[in-house]
Amino acid sequence: MNQTESHTGDPRFFQRRGPFALCKVVKQLGLEIDLDTEHAQKNFIGVAPLHSAGPNEISFLDNRRYIDLLKETRAGAVIVAKAFADKVPEHSVALISKDPYQSWACVAQFFHPAAPSTGKIHPSAVISENAIIGNNVEISALAVIGDKVKIGDGCIIASHAVIETGVEIGANCRIGAHVTISHALLGERVVLYPGVRIGQDGFGFAVTPEGFETVPQLGRVILEDGVEIGSNTTIDRGSMKDTIIGAGSRIDNLVQIGHNVQMGRCCIVVSQAGISGSTTLEDFVTIAAQAGLIGHIHIGKKARVGAQCGVMSDVEAGSDVIGSPAMPFKEFFRNVATLRKLSRKS
Amino acid sequence: MNQTESHTGDPRFFQRRGPFALCKVVKQLGLEIDLDTEHAQKNFIGVAPLHSAGPNEISFLDNRRYIDLLKETRAGAVIVAKAFADKVPEHSVALISKDPYQSWACVAQFFHPAAPSTGKIHPSAVISENAIIGNNVEISALAVIGDKVKIGDGCIIASHAVIETGVEIGANCRIGAHVTISHALLGERVVLYPGVRIGQDGFGFAVTPEGFETVPQLGRVILEDGVEIGSNTTIDRGSMKDTIIGAGSRIDNLVQIGHNVQMGRCCIVVSQAGISGSTTLEDFVTIAAQAGLIGHIHIGKKARVGAQCGVMSDVEAGSDVIGSPAMPFKEFFRNVATLRKLSRKS
Amino acid sequence: MNQTESHTGDPRFFQRRGPFALCKVVKQLGLEIDLDTEHAQKNFIGVAPLHSAGPNEISFLDNRRYIDLLKETRAGAVIVAKAFADKVPEHSVALISKDPYQSWACVAQFFHPAAPSTGKIHPSAVISENAIIGNNVEISALAVIGDKVKIGDGCIIASHAVIETGVEIGANCRIGAHVTISHALLGERVVLYPGVRIGQDGFGFAVTPEGFETVPQLGRVILEDGVEIGSNTTIDRGSMKDTIIGAGSRIDNLVQIGHNVQMGRCCIVVSQAGISGSTTLEDFVTIAAQAGLIGHIHIGKKARVGAQCGVMSDVEAGSDVIGSPAMPFKEFFRNVATLRKLSRKS
Repeated sequence: MNQTESHTGDPRFFQRRGPFALCKVVKQLGLEIDLDTEHAQKNFIGVAPLHSAGPNEISFLDNRRYIDLLKETRAGAVIVAKAFADKVPEHSVALISKDPYQSWACVAQFFHPAAPSTGKIHPSAVISENAIIGNNVEISALAVIGDKVKIGDGCIIASHAVIETGVEIGANCRIGAHVTISHALLGERVVLYPGVRIGQDGFGFAVTPEGFETVPQLGRVILEDGVEIGSNTTIDRGSMKDTIIGAGSRIDNLVQIGHNVQMGRCCIVVSQAGISGSTTLEDFVTIAAQAGLIGHIHIGKKARVGAQCGVMSDVEAGSDVIGSPAMPFKEFFRNVATLRKLSRKS
Repeated sequence: MNQTESHTGDPRFFQRRGPFALCKVVKQLGLEIDLDTEHAQKNFIGVAPLHSAGPNEISFLDNRRYIDLLKETRAGAVIVAKAFADKVPEHSVALISKDPYQSWACVAQFFHPAAPSTGKIHPSAVISENAIIGNNVEISALAVIGDKVKIGDGCIIASHAVIETGVEIGANCRIGAHVTISHALLGERVVLYPGVRIGQDGFGFAVTPEGFETVPQLGRVILEDGVEIGSNTTIDRGSMKDTIIGAGSRIDNLVQIGHNVQMGRCCIVVSQAGISGSTTLEDFVTIAAQAGLIGHIHIGKKARVGAQCGVMSDVEAGSDVIGSPAMPFKEFFRNVATLRKLSRKS
Repeated sequence: MNQTESHTGDPRFFQRRGPFALCKVVKQLGLEIDLDTEHAQKNFIGVAPLHSAGPNEISFLDNRRYIDLLKETRAGAVIVAKAFADKVPEHSVALISKDPYQSWACVAQFFHPAAPSTGKIHPSAVISENAIIGNNVEISALAVIGDKVKIGDGCIIASHAVIETGVEIGANCRIGAHVTISHALLGERVVLYPGVRIGQDGFGFAVTPEGFETVPQLGRVILEDGVEIGSNTTIDRGSMKDTIIGAGSRIDNLVQIGHNVQMGRCCIVVSQAGISGSTTLEDFVTIAAQAGLIGHIHIGKKARVGAQCGVMSDVEAGSDVIGSPAMPFKEFFRNVATLRKLSRKS
């Protein structure tokens, strides 16, 4: 196998549009840049990182850590913040953006738009005759669509997905391979990656002298518009009320969301974090990787919980916490320094 | 999508029995309560949480944190401990229970019993002709049942489950969608949620100068009666002896159980915890979320391991540990307080 | 269910060769041992652990912790290091090895070799007519093989595996049940356990005033020769360059590998660890269970990261770190001791 050369947009896996003249790209990005005629008409075939981009590819710099790569890039154009524009080599056009990473997202989508639904339903899919399937829905091989399921227009359901009885899915959702959904209502543009589990029973039981008595889990899971959920993440349905993931929130791989969790709009939950039952997150909360939150607590708006943090009580809006048990960032790093100093003395 | 109103027992997803007269409910719960005639005959249609229950629904209070909701509830009856009975509003009947949460489990099951097996085998399931399938077994679409598999009476096998060669499953088990089982023997009433992986090779290899040499994993997984295992949890088979999960134990989502782990009866393992190979847990051990145990250690009866705890050595029966490395609860919180005090001084 | 007796190599699940004369076993192990004639011709039927092995079974001792079992074993032969040879009971032949665990791997494989491909393709598998399937490939029930997929000679593809468009798999790979692979190139002898997710989008988006803008993930996943990946582990494809897992590396269950991670040869990543995007590991790095690495850092050759460690910066080659934030082992345990002492005083 000779595959050591890294590759952006390998045509075996990615569709590509273009080439596009640079002036068209700049217009697409909404940037106000005066290109001279020569540059404006030059054609570009795609995007690539600084170290591998060629003269007809566009690159970007977002992280100061990689500034040495900028100086040596062969890219024909580079999206940069104003502060770095003078570091762009002469043979390359500096495309100055207030938010280079957002511009990068935009230009990469321009060359490589997400494939739309083919509208085809594979004959091996098992679809209940009571299911209501919208227009232009793609359903791949061996997917299972249960009784009274509703699937909105333009959805893509990948191979082996299982959509259980009564589930409702809004328009233009993408449901990955091997996803399981039960007891749930999904808004529009929801994206579930492979192996996501939505709507199974929460971890609820009463302890009795004879063992454990299961408590029926009678709520649902609500995934609002634009929610995205990473591979093998698990979201349990509510016990009495619903588990709710607010519009636009992004959840990474292998995350656990317990029953009755209420998450606000545009929250971020990074991989392997866990949120215990009945905890609430207001809008714009960030939970970093491997953090854990106990149940029945409240995380205020725009609060940020650090990686591996163990949160045992409410977190105020706008605050940054880290450590286990959670404390303000400053206090945590002061503790680390203090203990190091004391250890050396002892 | 208009789904902000939370919903208990949405008929799209849950079957419901009843209505039932309150006297019948009280009898079902085994409570000794003298109801006056008017209350005894009043019909109830279901259960709901305090904040949304209506006059013909039953609710409960178990967590002191929610006592304000009790005072304002519209529920027709509320299950409470004796200590809170005087906080139940006048229009609501107080159903006094020694264990309100257990009574809640019982009443919720009464209105919403788990659906029994339909006894139907979907024609798309792929079933070996050498498999032995019991009476009244339900097998859903596209499940795969391997050679010489035995499935007991009354089992429910969901869509896309894969039961590999030789696996034996006792009566009345529920195997979720996308579950994989190999090299395993299951008792009765075992419940596996979607995406559970049972019986794959443990992480075993010898380090050699040329790389790693795989050690064949020649044991099995034994899941005793009544075990329940959460979504996407992985339980590796033993290397030489068996991996054993004791009767009645409850394991949450995304938990890792290594090869040769021996778990006693009625243990609890909360989400994202990990137990390394050859570690043993006696009966009634609790492992909280995201805790990790190294291999080859012994956890005594009724010990409790706190969230995110890192356990590097044996834990005595009945003790409570937390922290990484693990220490008694008291010591952990004293350490936290000491370090905070010293940091402020420095 | 009567299954308390633990069992090595249960014939319901494992194929077995033999019996073999001890001289043949010793030759297979490459050990230089002078057996007397009686021992040399004695037949052995298999392997078993010290506590359950019988007179015609071979066992081993690798961990000093189990030396008491050695003294009492009924095994007919025991693989041991020279230092323990005099602890082997008289009725048992001591098979002295410089690396008993490697010898154990070898003898267990001798009696229980991995089953080769049957070369059969199940009629229920859904295989694109543009896929290129090698010689002697086994494809189980309901697997899905996409357009232009290439599968090398001797591969085994288990039930319900989904191999998406364009994926290339080298010779003699084993792909477990319910695995999903997209945007990926696999070398030879790669082993993926059930529920592994390879090649889905990384967690990439730009934060905008209106919410999150998805950044197309245009790289691939490269799994080099001999890589093994545990159940329900997730490996995201690169954003612009590739995510690479180096030859011979072993990854355990429920691990998260972010986009653009570059892992060298023969690395070990234990269960529930997480490696964030764009971090690089040189050869022979070990990451213990539940450790977490932030993105964009570099871990030097042969470095070892302890369980639950939180790594926020580069780690030097050959060093051992633990704690959150990560520090040298010695410093960590000195800190623990210091804090305990100070707490007792206060």
